[in-house]
Amino acid sequence: MTENRGRLIVFSAPSGCGKGTMLKYILRDGRFYCSVSATTRKPRNSERDGVNYYFLEREDFLNKVENGEFLEYAEYCGNFYGTLLSEVEERLEKGVNVILEIEVQGAMKIRELRPDALFVFVAPPSLGELERRLRKRGTETDDVIAQRIAKASEEIALAENYDYIIVNAELSKAVEDFFTIVRAESLRAKNSAYITDEVIKNA
Amino acid sequence: MTENRGRLIVFSAPSGCGKGTMLKYILRDGRFYCSVSATTRKPRNSERDGVNYYFLEREDFLNKVENGEFLEYAEYCGNFYGTLLSEVEERLEKGVNVILEIEVQGAMKIRELRPDALFVFVAPPSLGELERRLRKRGTETDDVIAQRIAKASEEIALAENYDYIIVNAELSKAVEDFFTIVRAESLRAKNSAYITDEVIKNA
Repeated sequence: MTENRGRLIVFSAPSGCGKGTMLKYILRDGRFYCSVSATTRKPRNSERDGVNYYFLEREDFLNKVENGEFLEYAEYCGNFYGTLLSEVEERLEKGVNVILEIEVQGAMKIRELRPDALFVFVAPPSLGELERRLRKRGTETDDVIAQRIAKASEEIALAENYDYIIVNAELSKAVEDFFTIVRAESLRAKNSAYITDEVIKNA
Repeated sequence: MTENRGRLIVFSAPSGCGKGTMLKYILRDGRFYCSVSATTRKPRNSERDGVNYYFLEREDFLNKVENGEFLEYAEYCGNFYGTLLSEVEERLEKGVNVILEIEVQGAMKIRELRPDALFVFVAPPSLGELERRLRKRGTETDDVIAQRIAKASEEIALAENYDYIIVNAELSKAVEDFFTIVRAESLRAKNSAYITDEVIKNA
């Protein structure tokens, strides 16, 4: 790994953990880019191509799969979703850290494909607090909230497969923890062998 | 590992890299303690027992070795030097991070004994800069400086065996890097399994 290469960061959180808001703050730092997924599902009201998703025709999507243009993809409820390599590679080369916002199962696939990636999981302070947050939104029925809590519980149990766990009890601290992790990772000996080469070279 | 347990931190740097000054700043943070080594060598002018070293009689030292009271020890120029477990264990239990200031060969021994330890290496910006710093002190002959540079070069080549490498180009940044590493390490999934347990328990 060279000094200037960016880091591929897999970023997961159960629904309601404030991942979206964290990302908004993280992306204010110019060194980060959040990968836009491609999908074959139709755009909803306010969704824009290239912002929320790359909206592709099914045939187009499958052609790209065949051409090896995807880092990963999956079918979900009859539609395809995937991460295009073009979202990732060039940016990493330019030193930009590329964030993949992805759910736990997909993340574990990336784990095998990309041992160079950094895996960050965002957890709520507690399931009780998560439930309070979901209720506060007032947009979901009791049944849906119960499903989300059950799903979150499953996902949190898999968090140990990530590299880092950030508990989002306070937004600013959680965002700071994220930057702390990225900085510390850049100091890891295995990522900075080039440093010792430099030190010795410049005798 | 539980939330409150401190971290054992092995801290190494070639002579002249500013490790002592960094430690002074690090120790201002009450969560850190720098382990005092035991030795059988005689105290020099201003050295105080329990501050610079624990000065032990040879027999006393070897008794403690036999009783398993040392984490590690070595003989050097006819004297024994070692780290007493009593310097380490109780403090870790109390949540204090214990720093072992130790040279590279000793550090690698600790690596085997204590897989829970965190290994931090401090490097100079370059060997050229290290030489300038050593000359600036004005206390060493050219021969000694050449020896130190050669030794530093050997040690830096082994830095890849540490977990993290901090380049001490600017003191305040190097100290900040140290704290960043310790914070990030507390967020590592393998060190924070208790967190996900807590999250799920408090449903």
